[in-house]
Amino acid sequence: MYGIGARRPNRAASVLFMAAFASPSTSSSPPVSVIRADADRELAAFCADHRALLLEIGEELAPAADALEAMLAGGKRLRPTFCYWGWRGAGGAAGDGRIVRAAASLEFLQACALIHDDVIDNSDTRRGLPATHKRLSGLHAAQGWSGDSEGFGRGAAILIGDLCLAWSDEMYQASGFGQETLALGRRPFDAMRTEVMAGQYLDTLEQVRGTGTREAALRVMRYKSAKYTVERPLHLGAALAGRLPELEGVYTAYGLPLGVAFQLRDDVLGVFGDPSTTGKPAGDDLREGKRTLVAAETLARAGAADGARFTSLLGAPDLSAESVEWMCGLIESSGALAACEGLIERYAGEALAALESPELDDAAREPLRAMVAAATRRTH
Amino acid sequence: MYGIGARRPNRAASVLFMAAFASPSTSSSPPVSVIRADADRELAAFCADHRALLLEIGEELAPAADALEAMLAGGKRLRPTFCYWGWRGAGGAAGDGRIVRAAASLEFLQACALIHDDVIDNSDTRRGLPATHKRLSGLHAAQGWSGDSEGFGRGAAILIGDLCLAWSDEMYQASGFGQETLALGRRPFDAMRTEVMAGQYLDTLEQVRGTGTREAALRVMRYKSAKYTVERPLHLGAALAGRLPELEGVYTAYGLPLGVAFQLRDDVLGVFGDPSTTGKPAGDDLREGKRTLVAAETLARAGAADGARFTSLLGAPDLSAESVEWMCGLIESSGALAACEGLIERYAGEALAALESPELDDAAREPLRAMVAAATRRTH
Repeated sequence: MYGIGARRPNRAASVLFMAAFASPSTSSSPPVSVIRADADRELAAFCADHRALLLEIGEELAPAADALEAMLAGGKRLRPTFCYWGWRGAGGAAGDGRIVRAAASLEFLQACALIHDDVIDNSDTRRGLPATHKRLSGLHAAQGWSGDSEGFGRGAAILIGDLCLAWSDEMYQASGFGQETLALGRRPFDAMRTEVMAGQYLDTLEQVRGTGTREAALRVMRYKSAKYTVERPLHLGAALAGRLPELEGVYTAYGLPLGVAFQLRDDVLGVFGDPSTTGKPAGDDLREGKRTLVAAETLARAGAADGARFTSLLGAPDLSAESVEWMCGLIESSGALAACEGLIERYAGEALAALESPELDDAAREPLRAMVAAATRRTH
Repeated sequence: MYGIGARRPNRAASVLFMAAFASPSTSSSPPVSVIRADADRELAAFCADHRALLLEIGEELAPAADALEAMLAGGKRLRPTFCYWGWRGAGGAAGDGRIVRAAASLEFLQACALIHDDVIDNSDTRRGLPATHKRLSGLHAAQGWSGDSEGFGRGAAILIGDLCLAWSDEMYQASGFGQETLALGRRPFDAMRTEVMAGQYLDTLEQVRGTGTREAALRVMRYKSAKYTVERPLHLGAALAGRLPELEGVYTAYGLPLGVAFQLRDDVLGVFGDPSTTGKPAGDDLREGKRTLVAAETLARAGAADGARFTSLLGAPDLSAESVEWMCGLIESSGALAACEGLIERYAGEALAALESPELDDAAREPLRAMVAAATRRTH
């Protein structure tokens, strides 16, 4: 639901997601969260094994293992969930330990993405806790070690993220599937890694180049959110069930619009969300200067003078409440907000329509429908 | 020969290495460099394919692909070479395209390590060229993009390193070996990644904690140089030839002492190397404050007052020529230099002795002997 560029999960959206996990639309289908506890258990077992490996090398690696496990412990397991339903939709059996492990391995990739993203963005917090690099720079300061605490924290976080990235494919390869099956899954697995890193690079570039176009914003959403969070995990599940070729199109038709709708809902809430519901200050994304589609739609619709003022305010660290109010006003009066809401609706509809495909196993239809509803329901 | 913490390959050592590549000790054995041109060709082909993938996502990714390929283009292919001879020593056929690709995949891991290491150490150059993060911050400045050039360069380099790490195992898995064979190789492949990152973390920690003990220095050398550069690549080659169990002990007995001797020769040259031969300023490692075994041996042997002064000077950015001279004097007079030379000789002897094992295929014996000679021959 949120790309790796998003600083914090939106709490309102999370609440809805958890509702979808807990209460699927029909009682005949398993809850969307069916994989969650199993995935958590597999991740914990993998971490315990690898903590032991690290401590054999040196006991001083314990804080690195702690930081890595703390990052792994959080999160909504979105990518594993989509991977699992991709498997079920392709006829894979319920509760197969192999798919649980293969799906859970995506959480290590996500952990790397988040840890490195926080270094790149110089973000202090992640899910309400200190970001990994802050945690390690705090350790440096508390121990009174020599040199620069920030530099140490950054370096340690880069290495801990690298460990996560390496362990992601290690866990995938050790999931228990036969080697030929794993090889089938490599195409989506490899593609999603290249795509998310490329998308993140383009996002970083867009922050500094600031073209501010719809096309640029949509492309970033496509690669670092839609393909990475929804489409490729679904493809991976289908591949491991041996049915990627047949289901690739269905999952793309569902995953890309849903992924963009997810991100777009987050972006709208990042500007208009009620702070008491979202847990973020009003206009937080405007203060952070995110180059979202909401901003791009506004710039595309506003007059030259308003657009220039909007651009100059976007990302200003000392953005006043009055400026936030003016920017919100422009987003609404320009028609950008309505356009984004229209897009969310349209994309949700496209995703739902894709689920009508007869190629999809019935077991996955309702859970995947519930994901659409949760992601696109209004929360403010 | 140099761990990922070393800023620059030592040129004198490189020259010797290239001599070993070019002229093996006996004409009956193939040159050590036999894999080099083939590995370069495979890496170029892989990069060309993946550049196309990146450019499909966005043409603005071209500078990222350029930076990645520039890093890949350099280097002595040490890890692929050891992997190849590990294969040959286990009876693997000469010139098999699969081993070339699997071995070459280690260069992507090394590229990640170097790119991230330069970010961590804030190093400006790599192999005489701008480090990846400097290259990208230069692009930012040249294009006049908004925001902080250094921050952009650092973020882009982290992502480019991540791509290299992901592509390393992608290339390994696509090397052409059967899936069951690849699975055999995963144990050394996975172990070497965890070990090098853990070793690098311990190195970073040692820089700021500064215990300065021999044990700490040796442990870092073991994980981030000896296991990563020599032992695990040999194990990987043996595993892919289906003979890891039999040869694991031989390759460890050869690889660990040789890897430490490699690093130790570099460390001695980093202090005493002739600038006209090494291409590095005299005492460069002292100015950089590297916590090498040379430094640890000195501290273990010097008196309290000299040791305290040595520690306070180590890593001082404005270290004068007089101070370097005093430090070099202490390293010699304390007996540390002689101790390190003795260790190099002892380790070289241990490595050579391991090659006597009857389990080793004759094809690999001379090339692996030549690597020992090249790594430990005096160059100053």
